[in-house]
Amino acid sequence: MDRRSFLKTSALGGSAAAATTLAAPAYAQGKRKLTMVTSWPRGFAVLDDAASYLEQMVGELSGGDLTIEKKAPGELVGALEVFDAVTSGQADMYHSADYYFIGQHPGYAYFTAVPFGGTAQEVSNWYYHGGGEELHDELGQIFNLKGLISGNSGSQSGGWFAKEISSAADFNGLKFRMPGLGGKVLGKLGASVQNIPGGELYQALSSGALDGLEWVGPMADERAGFQEVAKVYYTAGFHEPGSALSSSINLDVWNELSDQHKAILRYASMAVTQFQLAETLSNNGAALARLQAQGVRTLQFPDDVWDAFGKASAEVMDENMGDELFAKIRNSFEASLATSADWINKSDGYYVQQRIRVQGS
Amino acid sequence: MDRRSFLKTSALGGSAAAATTLAAPAYAQGKRKLTMVTSWPRGFAVLDDAASYLEQMVGELSGGDLTIEKKAPGELVGALEVFDAVTSGQADMYHSADYYFIGQHPGYAYFTAVPFGGTAQEVSNWYYHGGGEELHDELGQIFNLKGLISGNSGSQSGGWFAKEISSAADFNGLKFRMPGLGGKVLGKLGASVQNIPGGELYQALSSGALDGLEWVGPMADERAGFQEVAKVYYTAGFHEPGSALSSSINLDVWNELSDQHKAILRYASMAVTQFQLAETLSNNGAALARLQAQGVRTLQFPDDVWDAFGKASAEVMDENMGDELFAKIRNSFEASLATSADWINKSDGYYVQQRIRVQGS
Repeated sequence: MDRRSFLKTSALGGSAAAATTLAAPAYAQGKRKLTMVTSWPRGFAVLDDAASYLEQMVGELSGGDLTIEKKAPGELVGALEVFDAVTSGQADMYHSADYYFIGQHPGYAYFTAVPFGGTAQEVSNWYYHGGGEELHDELGQIFNLKGLISGNSGSQSGGWFAKEISSAADFNGLKFRMPGLGGKVLGKLGASVQNIPGGELYQALSSGALDGLEWVGPMADERAGFQEVAKVYYTAGFHEPGSALSSSINLDVWNELSDQHKAILRYASMAVTQFQLAETLSNNGAALARLQAQGVRTLQFPDDVWDAFGKASAEVMDENMGDELFAKIRNSFEASLATSADWINKSDGYYVQQRIRVQGS
Repeated sequence: MDRRSFLKTSALGGSAAAATTLAAPAYAQGKRKLTMVTSWPRGFAVLDDAASYLEQMVGELSGGDLTIEKKAPGELVGALEVFDAVTSGQADMYHSADYYFIGQHPGYAYFTAVPFGGTAQEVSNWYYHGGGEELHDELGQIFNLKGLISGNSGSQSGGWFAKEISSAADFNGLKFRMPGLGGKVLGKLGASVQNIPGGELYQALSSGALDGLEWVGPMADERAGFQEVAKVYYTAGFHEPGSALSSSINLDVWNELSDQHKAILRYASMAVTQFQLAETLSNNGAALARLQAQGVRTLQFPDDVWDAFGKASAEVMDENMGDELFAKIRNSFEASLATSADWINKSDGYYVQQRIRVQGS
């Protein structure tokens, strides 16, 4: 997932507005409006959809007594300024992806996605029943935030390549674009990791300035048009197997909310994940079929490449283990994964393979 | 999934109470209480959990203005009488599994699970973004019901066997216990499908009266103690890959609810699925590990057995295709599956296999 181009542009727009500080109004005649700054341009598929569903559901659930006013990047602050805006009380809450804030604390990576981490379902298993939400709260205490998970992008694709990858050595010297922790992992395999703005990726792949790139998933990738300039598409990726979206609330604001309004924000967030992820997966499936119809070949990386991804991912995550809270979060997450993954793989996972083999879908 | 033993016992208790007809009270001072009859004994894992979460979330979301009073089987009506109780207005809503009501209409199977159907995620994809909810409504119109999906049991296990299954021919004459449509499918393979109450299954498997059985999944199976009398456990099953739970509301009651209270029931249902399924999958994973520690061998059916399951499943589903609405529901469901399955399998599905191979979980 990469929104660098949006984020950069938006941050500029946001800087001017950032000087204005909102007073957080208390309840007026039983009504409360929350200003929600987001990291997503209006209408941006999947991500702004999740934020919009949250806005809509909270309004309906409260009968209009609790409303969210969504502010796109630049309308109040820039896309990456949302965290500071909410911790400082300039805005009441944000909708974003917490791994943008690993500069504030590396543990935030686990509340979006980490290399070799969990699928959307596994992240939910951990968050709601493996201690994740409590650790999100513990992290939030440091920054005066109450965190919630409100949406998930699903598994992000392995990416587009000019040529097939036949071994891990093929990444050596490969000009590839992948942001964040995933990019660090590919760097360890010798890739020349490029940071090229989103709007320039098509041209870079077309001209050979890039040998490959990952973007989001079939629907977003199709819109970007990469199928016109590359025909090799690796479907499974190691870097973002299920990216949670979060809506964190200023803790002072949260503490002043009624129990009913806290419940509305918390359960609406669960409903958003349920509803929006199903939409994303439906759309991705339809887009994948269209890509294949346009001659795109879908492939999987060979086992030795996955071995190399795994080794390098562990190295990247190990680099933060000196931080006690990071270690606590990582250990909790990995314990949940170890508990829940085997059954899912042996039941749903195997079942779907067989069903597709037998009846085609 | 089988609750025959509970259902039968409970139905007896319910028959006496069924004569009492509740008047459905309108809003009194802005407050509304909905009587919800369920098919689940109080405290029954997964199923009554989902019903309880719905009760809890609705109360919290409405600040107590909309409350659900849950009635276990026998408290008002029997477990399988809930459908008729709600259509007639004797109760306001039920929480159950709609495939119990295929006698009322065969299309109801699709709102729980069908052989070779969808995983929990795929069912949600269809329900919210592939026309499922609208078809649930169309079916509900016939019976004066507004249907909602509120929970999912996840994928049910293939079952416990005295001996390994090496080919489809091994099902010929096998004394096996599987209820519902799945049982019909095994009947086509020559299995002697037995209907033995839940409480007698352990003894039947132990004595050899049964050669095998399926129950629910690792957590429930472990509680039933089958690991003490069989060591061969097939994890993936064809019969219930993701069983949705439903909470259907009398349509007259639904129509009288405020928009806010309709939103609360609908979004709480989504939140229940998100929260309860994550709990079930976490618990199943932990239970599977304990079963394996007790010497249980986990296996998968060979390909030719899956081929036979698939052929027989299609035959069973074809038997209802004379009904126009059934055909419409089936075609809608299968179109959604065809759209969404391939991407999920090629992304999450393949990713999880590789992750488990590389890092063990």
